[in-house]
Amino acid sequence: MMEALNELSRRIKATIGLVTDPAERGRELYQGADGTPTTQIDKLAENVVLGYLEEKGIELNVLSEEIGFVDRGAGKTLVLDPIDGTYNSIMGVPMYTVSMAIGKQSIRDVDIGYVRNLVTDDLYYAERGRGAFLNGQRVKASARKPLQDMVMIMYLGNGVHPDTFRLVKSVKRTRAYGCASIEMSLVGTGAVDAFIMNSEDVGKRIRVTDIAASHLFLREAGGEVYNLDGTLMDMPFDLAARSNFLAVGDPASREEIL
Amino acid sequence: MMEALNELSRRIKATIGLVTDPAERGRELYQGADGTPTTQIDKLAENVVLGYLEEKGIELNVLSEEIGFVDRGAGKTLVLDPIDGTYNSIMGVPMYTVSMAIGKQSIRDVDIGYVRNLVTDDLYYAERGRGAFLNGQRVKASARKPLQDMVMIMYLGNGVHPDTFRLVKSVKRTRAYGCASIEMSLVGTGAVDAFIMNSEDVGKRIRVTDIAASHLFLREAGGEVYNLDGTLMDMPFDLAARSNFLAVGDPASREEIL
Repeated sequence: MMEALNELSRRIKATIGLVTDPAERGRELYQGADGTPTTQIDKLAENVVLGYLEEKGIELNVLSEEIGFVDRGAGKTLVLDPIDGTYNSIMGVPMYTVSMAIGKQSIRDVDIGYVRNLVTDDLYYAERGRGAFLNGQRVKASARKPLQDMVMIMYLGNGVHPDTFRLVKSVKRTRAYGCASIEMSLVGTGAVDAFIMNSEDVGKRIRVTDIAASHLFLREAGGEVYNLDGTLMDMPFDLAARSNFLAVGDPASREEIL
Repeated sequence: MMEALNELSRRIKATIGLVTDPAERGRELYQGADGTPTTQIDKLAENVVLGYLEEKGIELNVLSEEIGFVDRGAGKTLVLDPIDGTYNSIMGVPMYTVSMAIGKQSIRDVDIGYVRNLVTDDLYYAERGRGAFLNGQRVKASARKPLQDMVMIMYLGNGVHPDTFRLVKSVKRTRAYGCASIEMSLVGTGAVDAFIMNSEDVGKRIRVTDIAASHLFLREAGGEVYNLDGTLMDMPFDLAARSNFLAVGDPASREEIL
């Protein structure tokens, strides 16, 4: 399966490389299945994936941001975000990925998580029970530390809850990179201590396609993802589902933050 | 001079590539001339630059974060940040640069601005009166638009002024990439509409080494940089100077934001 995922990311990268005009890349075509505007670059990448699965006879259903759920009669589903961080790609910021996860029906039964930075080719990869790997090197999330020493990634859309601002004032450093799959993976590599999304605007909360792969990556690295009430976070393979969350490198950090 | 700057950035990239252990890269050696901790990676890069200027007999003084001002008896000074975005480099985030500017005594007399992303090799380059170029293509900053349609980069250190949070709630998107030279350059390319730093902690405000190059890049692209009282922002070539600022793609946007 690794080989297929590598080939898919190569093809997506080659395809979007053909769309050299940033204005054309980001052209909003029509509303996608998840309600957000479909962009040219996302649509192109999605077509590449569907075409490849057909060509190779790979038995997987597909759940993707633009096309929705494609039932191909398989037992497992490829949860796909063909371009996570579309706006970064339009901006010329080298932080956007293809995110692919394979599982049955919800984030917590995902077996394989694959996040590839389409500019640098950095690969965040995890298999359930086998650990998390950045470019083939095993990684481990950071250990618990005091809040004032933490580096955190935070969701900062305009629906952001005021609690997030209190966190900004409390931690050592705050980042907002605009690419959830990388941002959650950076908690897994230990680069940052936590990643929080606390949006009062339900429509801006995370979708399963954004984090299905990096959710496994983080847990395999020793971290955990919680709802904001402190319970374990799960999401069904359903584009209608939206969620806030707190991702931490060390489960013990949860109480420090929430 | 372009040739020399290209060679310098190649040598810096090659040198830091030798330091493969992230823990080693970020090891804090001692306090730099600007009062912030000197890191191994910064020090290595700085030595590369000083060695090169000697080797080629290039007549420039040097002002750099770690070593301070090196008077080489020249009329002009190379204002250097050998690695802007050191923390990104330690994190494995592909947004850190070498930033080099050549001028006499303050940001507004800079003749050449050169910012090179050390991962992707993207080059943000400007010469006074000749325009701003991203990888050789002329760029233009964005035109005025309503606040709620703006994409902004904001400083979000823990000394951040509460006004910044009001802006987060008002604009369309907020980013915090942790690399000021790229962040100001992104206003120049039109990728974002503005970049604001409003820190109550004077010690966290911007240094001249961080933005000497990108300040010219932005102005050559049609943008402008202001103090938070609305006056034009300037900074002497002095590591002790610190400043807040608002950088905008369109000077008319200043009133919209301040």
